[in-house]
Amino acid sequence: MKQALLYEGKAKQIYATENPNQVIMYYKDDATAFNGIKKSVIAEKGRLNAAITNHLFAYLSENGVPTHLIEQLNEREQLCHNVEIFPLEVIIRNIAAGSITKRLAVVEGTSFTQPIFELCYKNDDLGDPLINDDHAIALGLITAEQLAQVKALTLKINTLLQARFDEIGIDLVDFKIEFGKTTTNEIVLADEISPDSCRFWEQTTARKLDKDRFRQDLGDVTQAYEEILARLLG
Amino acid sequence: MKQALLYEGKAKQIYATENPNQVIMYYKDDATAFNGIKKSVIAEKGRLNAAITNHLFAYLSENGVPTHLIEQLNEREQLCHNVEIFPLEVIIRNIAAGSITKRLAVVEGTSFTQPIFELCYKNDDLGDPLINDDHAIALGLITAEQLAQVKALTLKINTLLQARFDEIGIDLVDFKIEFGKTTTNEIVLADEISPDSCRFWEQTTARKLDKDRFRQDLGDVTQAYEEILARLLG
Repeated sequence: MKQALLYEGKAKQIYATENPNQVIMYYKDDATAFNGIKKSVIAEKGRLNAAITNHLFAYLSENGVPTHLIEQLNEREQLCHNVEIFPLEVIIRNIAAGSITKRLAVVEGTSFTQPIFELCYKNDDLGDPLINDDHAIALGLITAEQLAQVKALTLKINTLLQARFDEIGIDLVDFKIEFGKTTTNEIVLADEISPDSCRFWEQTTARKLDKDRFRQDLGDVTQAYEEILARLLG
Repeated sequence: MKQALLYEGKAKQIYATENPNQVIMYYKDDATAFNGIKKSVIAEKGRLNAAITNHLFAYLSENGVPTHLIEQLNEREQLCHNVEIFPLEVIIRNIAAGSITKRLAVVEGTSFTQPIFELCYKNDDLGDPLINDDHAIALGLITAEQLAQVKALTLKINTLLQARFDEIGIDLVDFKIEFGKTTTNEIVLADEISPDSCRFWEQTTARKLDKDRFRQDLGDVTQAYEEILARLLG
């Protein structure tokens, strides 16, 4: 069913299908951090991230969030709508961790009263810099109307995900998502939602159950991803 | 009339007066660039920036923009309302120049369809990082309501300044302003508006008439500042 490789990213590949409106997304075990400087392979990561994304996208879809996902084809492959991805990393921060602790000297673990919405310009040469709404529009990355939609969807996704993870004893610290535009101009959630793209802290122990285990050499990386999936499947 | 030195910045000093609601702002000839790495003295700069700021603040005030300026006392001193400055650099970019050309790879001289509004967190240790509205509010630098006022005032100031500089054959490329809160909680324009804090390009020749002559060692720095004042008073 897979045809030509259309795009290869750090953690996934996108293949054409017979239908020009559909693609297949393949999840690799490759892991990178710090803008590609740290590289490794995390056993079973692709399978686990595909399953976690499949579960969460189905949950979001049931709750009114349009997504690119059509169906899970096998352990590592998903059939998706062919979307044009906005070159934006869309980020929500509920609790301070990662880059914001250094950039703005906020102590890790600080809870924000309101979620912080951030945009980064997806551009490896520039180091995916933080931008604001005006920059995104001036650079032609998205229109003002599309950005208003993306922001509203992102806040809704945050509320839904926080509720879902709270049920399984996990704090949703922050996450990065991407949006795309379908061939019929609908804005949909794309890419993935997984321990690669979120920070998950166990509520009782503050144990990190996400890619920070890889970034910070904390060990038991695969086990952390497995634990997230196991709790979601309950 | 000047009493204790309350604050010394890179280009100005603030002194107490007998009235706790009023301060005196003294304009120095000191010049710094690149976050303090490049330092020098520009002859007459203090006098010229005081005169330019005095002229522009009076013009803005006549057009409904509240400012901290009460009156020019002498060549280098202004009597001002004592305000609590928001620790924010408020920036408007009409044409690409300076940091945005490197950060986002925008070609210098590119005109933006809409002015770009930016906030930087005034914090030397962090290098005055770019932030967005959510960061400013989360860090407690300003409230959402105050920020809405600051944004509306800034766009109004941009429109007024663009019109004023267009009359004298100069493009207002970008500028940095600061706002403060008076003892009666009014938000007012503070600090200065001068060739230190704006980029001015002569329309016919694209000649730079601002601090970039110092940053880029283009020479004739004092003459450029004199030319801006002469045209405004012209």
